[in-house]
This record gives sequence, C-alpha cells and structure tokens, in this order.
Amino acid sequence: MIRVGIVGASGYTGVELARILCHHPEVELSLATSRRYAGQPLSRVFPNLRGIVDLVCEDVQVEDLAQRADFFFLAVPHQTAMNFVPILLEAGKKVVDLSADFRIHDAGVYEQWYQTHTAQNYLGEAVYGLPELYRERIAGSRLVANPGCYPTSVILGLAPLLKNYLIDPQTIIIDSKSGTTGAGRSANTATLFCEVADGFRAYKVGEHRHTPEIEQELGLLCGRDLNVTFVPHLLPISRGILSTIYASTSKEISQNDVNQLYADFYADEFFVRVCEPGSFPATQFVRGSNFCDIGCRVDARTGRIVVVSAIDNVVKGAAGQAVQNMNLLCSFPEDLGLRHIPLFP
Amino acid sequence: MIRVGIVGASGYTGVELARILCHHPEVELSLATSRRYAGQPLSRVFPNLRGIVDLVCEDVQVEDLAQRADFFFLAVPHQTAMNFVPILLEAGKKVVDLSADFRIHDAGVYEQWYQTHTAQNYLGEAVYGLPELYRERIAGSRLVANPGCYPTSVILGLAPLLKNYLIDPQTIIIDSKSGTTGAGRSANTATLFCEVADGFRAYKVGEHRHTPEIEQELGLLCGRDLNVTFVPHLLPISRGILSTIYASTSKEISQNDVNQLYADFYADEFFVRVCEPGSFPATQFVRGSNFCDIGCRVDARTGRIVVVSAIDNVVKGAAGQAVQNMNLLCSFPEDLGLRHIPLFP
Amino acid sequence: MIRVGIVGASGYTGVELARILCHHPEVELSLATSRRYAGQPLSRVFPNLRGIVDLVCEDVQVEDLAQRADFFFLAVPHQTAMNFVPILLEAGKKVVDLSADFRIHDAGVYEQWYQTHTAQNYLGEAVYGLPELYRERIAGSRLVANPGCYPTSVILGLAPLLKNYLIDPQTIIIDSKSGTTGAGRSANTATLFCEVADGFRAYKVGEHRHTPEIEQELGLLCGRDLNVTFVPHLLPISRGILSTIYASTSKEISQNDVNQLYADFYADEFFVRVCEPGSFPATQFVRGSNFCDIGCRVDARTGRIVVVSAIDNVVKGAAGQAVQNMNLLCSFPEDLGLRHIPLFP
Amino acid sequence: MIRVGIVGASGYTGVELARILCHHPEVELSLATSRRYAGQPLSRVFPNLRGIVDLVCEDVQVEDLAQRADFFFLAVPHQTAMNFVPILLEAGKKVVDLSADFRIHDAGVYEQWYQTHTAQNYLGEAVYGLPELYRERIAGSRLVANPGCYPTSVILGLAPLLKNYLIDPQTIIIDSKSGTTGAGRSANTATLFCEVADGFRAYKVGEHRHTPEIEQELGLLCGRDLNVTFVPHLLPISRGILSTIYASTSKEISQNDVNQLYADFYADEFFVRVCEPGSFPATQFVRGSNFCDIGCRVDARTGRIVVVSAIDNVVKGAAGQAVQNMNLLCSFPEDLGLRHIPLFP
Repeated sequence: MIRVGIVGASGYTGVELARILCHHPEVELSLATSRRYAGQPLSRVFPNLRGIVDLVCEDVQVEDLAQRADFFFLAVPHQTAMNFVPILLEAGKKVVDLSADFRIHDAGVYEQWYQTHTAQNYLGEAVYGLPELYRERIAGSRLVANPGCYPTSVILGLAPLLKNYLIDPQTIIIDSKSGTTGAGRSANTATLFCEVADGFRAYKVGEHRHTPEIEQELGLLCGRDLNVTFVPHLLPISRGILSTIYASTSKEISQNDVNQLYADFYADEFFVRVCEPGSFPATQFVRGSNFCDIGCRVDARTGRIVVVSAIDNVVKGAAGQAVQNMNLLCSFPEDLGLRHIPLFP
Repeated sequence: MIRVGIVGASGYTGVELARILCHHPEVELSLATSRRYAGQPLSRVFPNLRGIVDLVCEDVQVEDLAQRADFFFLAVPHQTAMNFVPILLEAGKKVVDLSADFRIHDAGVYEQWYQTHTAQNYLGEAVYGLPELYRERIAGSRLVANPGCYPTSVILGLAPLLKNYLIDPQTIIIDSKSGTTGAGRSANTATLFCEVADGFRAYKVGEHRHTPEIEQELGLLCGRDLNVTFVPHLLPISRGILSTIYASTSKEISQNDVNQLYADFYADEFFVRVCEPGSFPATQFVRGSNFCDIGCRVDARTGRIVVVSAIDNVVKGAAGQAVQNMNLLCSFPEDLGLRHIPLFP
Repeated sequence: MIRVGIVGASGYTGVELARILCHHPEVELSLATSRRYAGQPLSRVFPNLRGIVDLVCEDVQVEDLAQRADFFFLAVPHQTAMNFVPILLEAGKKVVDLSADFRIHDAGVYEQWYQTHTAQNYLGEAVYGLPELYRERIAGSRLVANPGCYPTSVILGLAPLLKNYLIDPQTIIIDSKSGTTGAGRSANTATLFCEVADGFRAYKVGEHRHTPEIEQELGLLCGRDLNVTFVPHLLPISRGILSTIYASTSKEISQNDVNQLYADFYADEFFVRVCEPGSFPATQFVRGSNFCDIGCRVDARTGRIVVVSAIDNVVKGAAGQAVQNMNLLCSFPEDLGLRHIPLFP
Repeated sequence: MIRVGIVGASGYTGVELARILCHHPEVELSLATSRRYAGQPLSRVFPNLRGIVDLVCEDVQVEDLAQRADFFFLAVPHQTAMNFVPILLEAGKKVVDLSADFRIHDAGVYEQWYQTHTAQNYLGEAVYGLPELYRERIAGSRLVANPGCYPTSVILGLAPLLKNYLIDPQTIIIDSKSGTTGAGRSANTATLFCEVADGFRAYKVGEHRHTPEIEQELGLLCGRDLNVTFVPHLLPISRGILSTIYASTSKEISQNDVNQLYADFYADEFFVRVCEPGSFPATQFVRGSNFCDIGCRVDARTGRIVVVSAIDNVVKGAAGQAVQNMNLLCSFPEDLGLRHIPLFP
C-alpha cells in the first residue's frame, strides 16, 4: 500500500487518475491539489466521484508536497511540472510526470518547440513511459515521462513495422483525430459545446508540439532520424483518439504477413488488441479503458500501408498509462486496477 | 461460483450484462444466446469485449437452455420472456427477467397495456426487483421482475415523500428524458444517428407502457390507488435517464426538512446518492454506474415539490440492477461486481 | 431600405441576427459592435459569414451609436441594455431589445428577479414583442422588448387554452429543455463541450428568471394572477427549446376539440405550425427557422392536458422573432427575410 | 419556370433537394417519388417541410415518369439510376443523376468497382457535374453525373495544385471524414444513434468506391494516370465532410505562393471560399450551405503540402451541387436559390 498524490486534480486527467486510483488495491489516495478549487471536496468538482472519493482539494506549497505522499502524479501543464520534479525526486519520491517536460531527450529540441527548460539535468534519467517498449527501464527508474496522447497512438501503431524495417521512415504521414478532453478543462470560447458540437476541424496543421516526441520515438524504433507530417483534428466527442497512419512499404509485404506480424508483436501485451483481419478500430470500443486497438491494411495499388490505431486519450493516452507506469515502478502487476472494460455504447 | 446465462445477448442490455458479469468474482459466464448472431463471437458483435469475453453466441432451443447455466438473465422482449420463465423455473433455475412480463401484479392491467399473458400463474411469486424497497423478498425468491428503466428513476425519487405521506398522490406529474439505448438495437429509421442527433422530442405522450408499472409501485408506497401523468422524451445521448417529478405537498414542509428526509431515507443505500442541498443530478455523473442520484426542491411559491433523479438506464435501469438482484438471490454482497465509478467526462 | 445596427454582435444571438439580416431585402447592415473583437471582421469571429458579411466589429461609445443606424437590435446582457435604450430612443431611433430589461411591466417584479432598473420611465411604452399576440401594438411602437426564449415557447403553447379558459391557471407546470446556445458564448467551464456532451441536467430548478415573464404573460391571457412551476434543463444540442407543459383542464374537453381549437387559433399564423393530431414536435424540425411547432394531448386518465412546443431558441426565441418585430415596426411584410426552412437533418 | 421531379425523395438527399427547390424562384416542384412512403405527404416523412411543401409521395412507374416534370433529379441508388436515365432522356427530359452510374467515363473501371453497367451508350454524353471545372460543358448537356461527396471535397481541394503541376501526383494521400448522412436513411444497425454517437472510426480503408472517381478527375487535372490512397471515416455529426489531403511538392513553393495561388484560382468562384492564411476550414462553418472552404499549409520540414477542404456533404456534396448543375443546364444564374448562409452554431 502506497500513499499517492495527484498534483493538479481538477483537470480531466486529474479526475481520471482519481477514478482509477480510488479502486486500486495497492493505493491510498492521500492528496489532491488544485489551486482553483482549494477547500472544496473533489467530489463537488466532479460529482461522479460522490460517495466514493472523499478527498478535499488543497493548494499545497511545493516545499510541503513531498511529505504528503510516497508517489506523485503530476497532472499540471508543461513548464510547471519541471518546477516540481527536482524537489520531489530529491525528497526521495517517485514521480510520473504527465506533462511534456521530460519526454524529449534533447533539451535543444524541447526548447525549440516549447520554452526554456530549467531542469535539464533530470532529462537523462527520465524514462519515456511507454511500457510496451520500455518496460524494464521504467521499472528501474524514479522519474517517468508519461507519453503524450497522440504519440501513444502513433508509436504503438507503427512499432511492428519500424522495428522490422518494413516501411520507409521518411514517408510517414499521421492524420490524428482527438476528442475534446484533449483540449483541457480551462474556460475557453473555442472549446464551448456550441463551438465543437456537430462539427469537425483540423488544427495546428503541421505544427503540433507532439511532432518532435513522435519523431524521437519513431526514430529510435528504426534507428534513423526521420520527419513526419502530423495533422491533428478535433472530434465532437469527449474521449478518444484515432490515428490513421500512412507509409510506403520498403519491401513487398502481403496483408497476411502484416496481420501475422502485428498478432505476434503484441501477443503478450494485454493492453494492445490487434483487430480481426479486415476490421478496424473505433474509439467507442476503447472508451474508458486502457486498451490500444490496432488494424492495418496493405494498399497494394499504391505500395502503401495504412495503420489505424485507437485509444482513450484520457486513459491509455494519459491517466491509465500513468498508472500502468506506477505499477511497473512499484513492482505491482502491470494491469493492477486497470482492467476496465470499454463502455459501449 | 455460479454458471450464468444471458438470453438475448446482442442488445444493449445484453452487452452490458456481459460487461458487468465477466468481472464478477462469483460468476462464470456460460452462455450467451442470440438468434441473429449465432455462431459469432460476442466480441465480434461488440468489439469492446475483445480480449475479455470469449463466448460465442448461440441459438439455443428453449428446452435445452436449462442445462447450460444455473442462473438466467432474460434480456428478450416482453411476450418472449413469458415463454422461457416457466421452463427455467420448473428446471430449478433462478431467473431475473428484464422484460415487463412479470412486473405488473394484476394480469388484467398487464393485458390492457401489453397483450395476453400466458404465464399468469407465475405472477404471484415474481418479486418486483427494486432492492432498495424489496430487498428481503427478492432474497427469498426464484423469479425477479427487473424494474423498467423509467420506473426505477421515478420510484426511487418519490419513495421518501410517498412513504411519509408528504405529497398528494393524485398530483404527480413525471417528465422523463431517456438516452437512445432505451430504444434498443434493432435496425430502425427512427433511431438512426441522423434522426436523433442534435434533436429532442417527446414520444408516447401520456401512453407509455411504463405508466401502469409506475402507478402500481407508487400506489403501494402510499397505500392508495393513483394515476400519474407520464411523458417520456428521447435525448440525443446513448445512456442516461433524468426524471423531473412534480407533486403538490400535502402539508407544509421546508427545504431543510426535505433535505434531511432524503439523507436519512437513503443513508444506508450505497447505490442511491442524495445530491448536496441546492445541487441537482446530471446523467453524465452516473454514466456507466449503478447509482441513482437524487435532488429535490421545495417550490414554496406554488406549494409543490420538484424531485430530479438520474440513472444510467442501461445499468441501474437494467443490467446493473439485474446483477444487484442476482447478488441478493444468491446471497452475495449486494454490491459485488457493481462498484463501477461513473465515467466522466 | 433601412440601416440596421447590431449592438453586441459577437454572441450567438448577434451572429444569428447577422445571418438573417444580411439577406433581408429591406436592410442594410451598417454596424456590428463588439468590445472583445473590435477591429476584427465579423466573418473572422464567425467564419460561416465569410464571403457574405464584410462588417468589421467596432467598439462604439454609447453617444456615437445613434448616428450609425436607423434601427437597432440590442443583443447585450440585461442591465447593459437599459443604458442604451433611452439614448437611442431620444435620438429618434427604433429599438428591439433582446435583453430582459423591458419585458416585465412591473418594475418591482423586475427588481425582485434581476437588479435595480434605471430606465423605468420607458417601461410603459415598451411593447412585449410576441407578434402572434401583440401584433398591432408592436407595429405602433418604437421600443419592443423581445421575449425570452423559454417564454416564447410557453406562451404560444398555452395561449389557445388560457384565452378560452379551458385550464385551471394555478395548475400550470412547465418542464423546458434548452440547447446550449441559450447559455451564451462566454468562456465558462460549465458549458465546455466535455461538460455538456452526452449528458443532461436540470438547472435553476424553480428559480429561473424567465418565471416572472411567463407568469405576467400567461396571467394577461386569462385575466388572472397566477404562479407556475418552471424547471429548465440543459440539452446537449446547440439549438432548440422543447417545452412540455402540464395543466388540469377546467372543464371536460375532448382530444378532437383541442385539435380543432389549436388549428383554428393559429390558422393565420405562418410561424406557428400545429402538428398533425397524434404527433408531437421535435427541435430538429424547427432548427434554423422561425417556426414554433405545437402538439397537444388530453390525458383523460388524469384530467390533464399536455402541450408540447418546440422552437429554435436562437431564431423564434431570439434573433428571428426580433426581425419579425422589426418587420412590424417598419411596416414590412411580417415574414420578410424569415422564411428559412428548418435544416434537417 | 420549370416543373421539377425528385425521384427518390425520402432519403436525406431527397429532403434536401426539396428544401432547396421549394424556394427556388424558377422551379415548381411537381413530383416526389418514394416507394416506401407512397401516399403520404412528404411533410409527414420530414416534418421540417410542414407548412411549406405540400407534395404527396408517389410510387410512379418508370414509363409514367417523364410526363410529370421537365427536369429530373435522380436521388436513387446506383444501378437503379441507370434504368431511369435512358427513358427520361429519350423523352426529351434533362437529368441530374446523383448516383455514381454516370460518373466514371470508363465502363470497365465502373464495373470493376460497382457492377455491370446496362446503359453504357449514355456514358459518353454524361458530363461530370463539378461546375467549377466543367461549367461550359455542363451548360450544354442534358445528362449530368453529379459528383460524389468525397470527390467534390478532394477535387476542389487539389485542383489549383494539380493544374499547375506543383505536386507529385503519385504521392496523394486522402484522409476524409464524413457525417453520417452519407450513410443514407435506410434502417441499419451500424448507423443507429448509439453505434455512431460519441465515437469515430475508419471504414472501407483503401477500398471505397469513390476511389476511381477521384483518380479519374485528379488524373484529368494533371494529365497523368495516378493512384491515390483514400481512407474515409465516419464522424458523429449529421452533415459535413472534411478531407485532409497530403502530397509531396514537386518543386519548392512558399506558403505565400500557395496562398496566392488558391486566392487567384478561386477568385471568381462564389461557392469556394479560401480561408484566411493560417486558418483552416471546419464543417460547422459550411453547414447547410453550398460552400466549399479550403485551407493549405506547406510543410517545409517534410517537403509536403497539406490541403484541408470542408463541404456540407448533403449540399455541395449532393443536393446543392445538383441544383447548381440544374441552374447551368437551364441557363439560370448559377447561384440562384443557393445562397444559403451556413448555420452556425
């Protein structure tokens, strides 16, 4: 049993961490911080938690944080997270940081896409928290950089192909669509119900900050630097990311071979479900769960392969994967507290 | 550990029973029937179950059913259910019937709103499966008539007032709004996405078949025959019922007294959550859970009281309540396998 | 041809006024004010207007307003509107005020539900702008108080019954459901997509500010003071209000009689469509139009009548009705520029 | 004034044709056929038309059709349309066929993707009805093959680039997302509200029948045979298509040059709106209108260009474009009856 604190509990990632952790058999939720809602029960901010979670939101000073829990989830914006990490690590705590601050290994790249990095000497020990790829290193670390939502869907989708050098790394095009939880819970005209409902749009075309994170990880998979075209879109749904990924095959490969490749590659991964041949994922079939569903099609007419992957961006794309990482860090069974079945419809 | 069969597994109630039961620690799912999908894995019909449920849908003859499980959930239409019940009971099985066939005690009333009843001699022993009211009788029975979705929201909402004779039973007006899962999963132009989305309508105004069920149960609560006006509406959401209920108070009562009354009445009921004074329920805060949330307001200007109750129609209004009844019938803890936290957002 | 100004053009009512007025054959849109977007083309704020409306938003001082147009629509919040009205009227302009400031005849009642009224000497001449009831008085006025969205749906729904003394005025219960445009376009966590989507809730139960407006107008229809119970709800749709209204009949009346009554009462009203007997309105069938659809059912079992009415809250509940009033004030054909056909699906 | 018949009036394209045509100043709607709803007023099938359209649906035999109108819109499935066309043309009528039957010039290609073509001798004279490209030829024809919804969004999006040889034709990847009206109005479990709502999926990955139509038209634009990768997706909205199109540039080109190219290319096209530089289209800003909105971004990092185009699939992707073609065929102003402003929100 460990005491766990959620720093930044009043966003959509925060409430999802609370939802998952409050039923986790090895966790005692000991702290939920929120400046905006300090003094209010978390279950008043999120009435779904009523009768289940009785934490009160607190505005805790950085220096007082460490004593309040053994393990911390940082669900705060990038640039804020890098202020907490050194203090918590120095106090001997373990941290899963859900912001972007420790995902990019190269501080120069980070600063090019974000802003100045003030905790660069912790970059080296941060492990990129995609358990399906880095399970062992995560288990031995004390600081995990939880992957971005889009990158999670993309990297899991392409890993079998890239690791086996089956596609040309310079031809990767990623068309991703995300539910609106991805835009956060701050008051904002652009994400009002009436602006998003019954509509669909592209945004940050070719300039989204998840681009360097995707490129770093895809590059590591195939051992080559690469650039991708990445275009995110905003879906009129709350949860879910579906990424449709295109690449040219680097050798001839049959549909059957690809089916077999994915089935084998993910045979032991509980949280990755390869679709039946000929069928493709949908966000509604992973809703509320930590699954990543993947389907593929070889487009022989054009010499390309199309990979479609779907996750719940709040779970496998954020809070669920963070708990999966906590399980690894704490030597709990990796799926402990995470076997939620997708809620359909 | 009991073997459980779902008869009619390919509707929305069926898949929800599977979702709940496959994680129930005392249940082995041994059978899922579906005429339409016979021979297909249930997880192909509902890909959310992929990797979790490996049952194949079967088209089993009535006479062969009994040997396939110890306990049966009937998720088939009314009139069909009454054909199964006698055979299963005679074979010594226990049954929770989710249809309307055994909810109405008076066969004459049933036949007036539905059609001929061909299993009337089982009406006497059927227990109306609202655990918060009939817990003991359910525990001792072998046939439970699982309540309708609308009636569940209404009866739980009004029970404290009616049991304490605080409202005039002849003044009850019920304005209910339901998600579209309530209309079932049959192909039907009227419930196509484009007919329902971004819209809202009333239907079966004053003539919905849940009316006699509501009247029966409300009448039993206050010991008087009564008639209600009941108008259901169709919401452009998948899950959720919110009922707004109006009645004239029969004596003066303060807002504080009403708050206290509800808090006391449901103090020991895990699945009924009384909202904080001044706040009201919303369907999104019970989504995917077995909770019924209730809020009240005394409208002193008009001498009325307004009760608002919300449930997930597929859970507390169907599959979840059915499992709650199974737990009682089988002497399991009443909330076993049912502590899902509402999924928000 | 008149020059028309929209004061407060960057809200949902503002953009809808622009949409309607820019195709109105007797109107030249000469001004759109917005403090927040001053200097920006209105078509950048609302790209649906691109290529059609080329106005630039301006932040105009009150004293400079009058010279910029002949006719003004005030689409600003209550309390703000009362500052503009005297100045515009004194400058000889005509005004349709879409706020609540001049709807309540009794300043005391207004101040009880809103705040201090600083332009009370204009209350007497303001005409309540429901053309179906007050057509002649509107035509002769210079200040029209455009009705609230909920009241429009309620008053049109009940007028035939109340004018003919067919219901008991003290038994009226109004259960209304509104799309989220009704909550405005200000940044607000409570109306973010993820808070509203796939959900439904009641709000301001028994205490919404449209209550006194409804009571005033219903009272005038039947010549009696009355109180109503009014409960609004928030629908996960952008546009549309559906009100379900309950009352006890004061004499026996058949379904056929009621059908005939409504058909006759609204025979000459283009914008009120009485549904076919047995059918009821839906918000999606009035979307984008100035229609109010109405259906009724006599509930003989309980001695009540149920009236269901539907409008597009942004059109007949705001901008459309405002233009209908302008047409009357300016002696244009009442439906000029307003014959939009509902957009379905 | 011409008499116009809609063959197949009870689908979503049919009702949209009725919505547009009933206000068209040169059109008298003389016929609406529907086998399923024969004998019923069209306004009962689609209550949005109540009070406006008084046509009754009829089941007319093919041989009796011609005498009922001067001009016909065929809103029936492919393979059905090819039975009507010869008869109507031989009777001297003009026809806009909204099915796929006459879009593909090469009967062999058609038969490879669809089925046997039984009216091949009319293929030669059918004109592909994209007015922005084929205005003159449409005006002189009697049979117009109205483009598919996806192809319309793609061809308009790429025409400026292909005509100017700025992209490599073999690198085109098209990721399209469509509202659910595109799936039609037939009863079908897969398009029920609860299957589509709050979800998103890819379908017919790499094998959608619009592929050869897209390839034919893009090939004609650049004078080369080409193959594209085309993946459609299903959006949980009713109306709208957004296509995100990727291609490698064949020479270096700046963002400014591309902005200028699109602005110039579509300078005289009322129905094509090029977005402000740096902004991109959204389906909600073309809803209910005949506009196609287009935005572009040069992705210098990868040597690609991304084009995003949005249409209302029921209007510019079907009924609106069909009326635009009728206007050309009949020498009416091209935008007559088609200047609907997008309905937002």
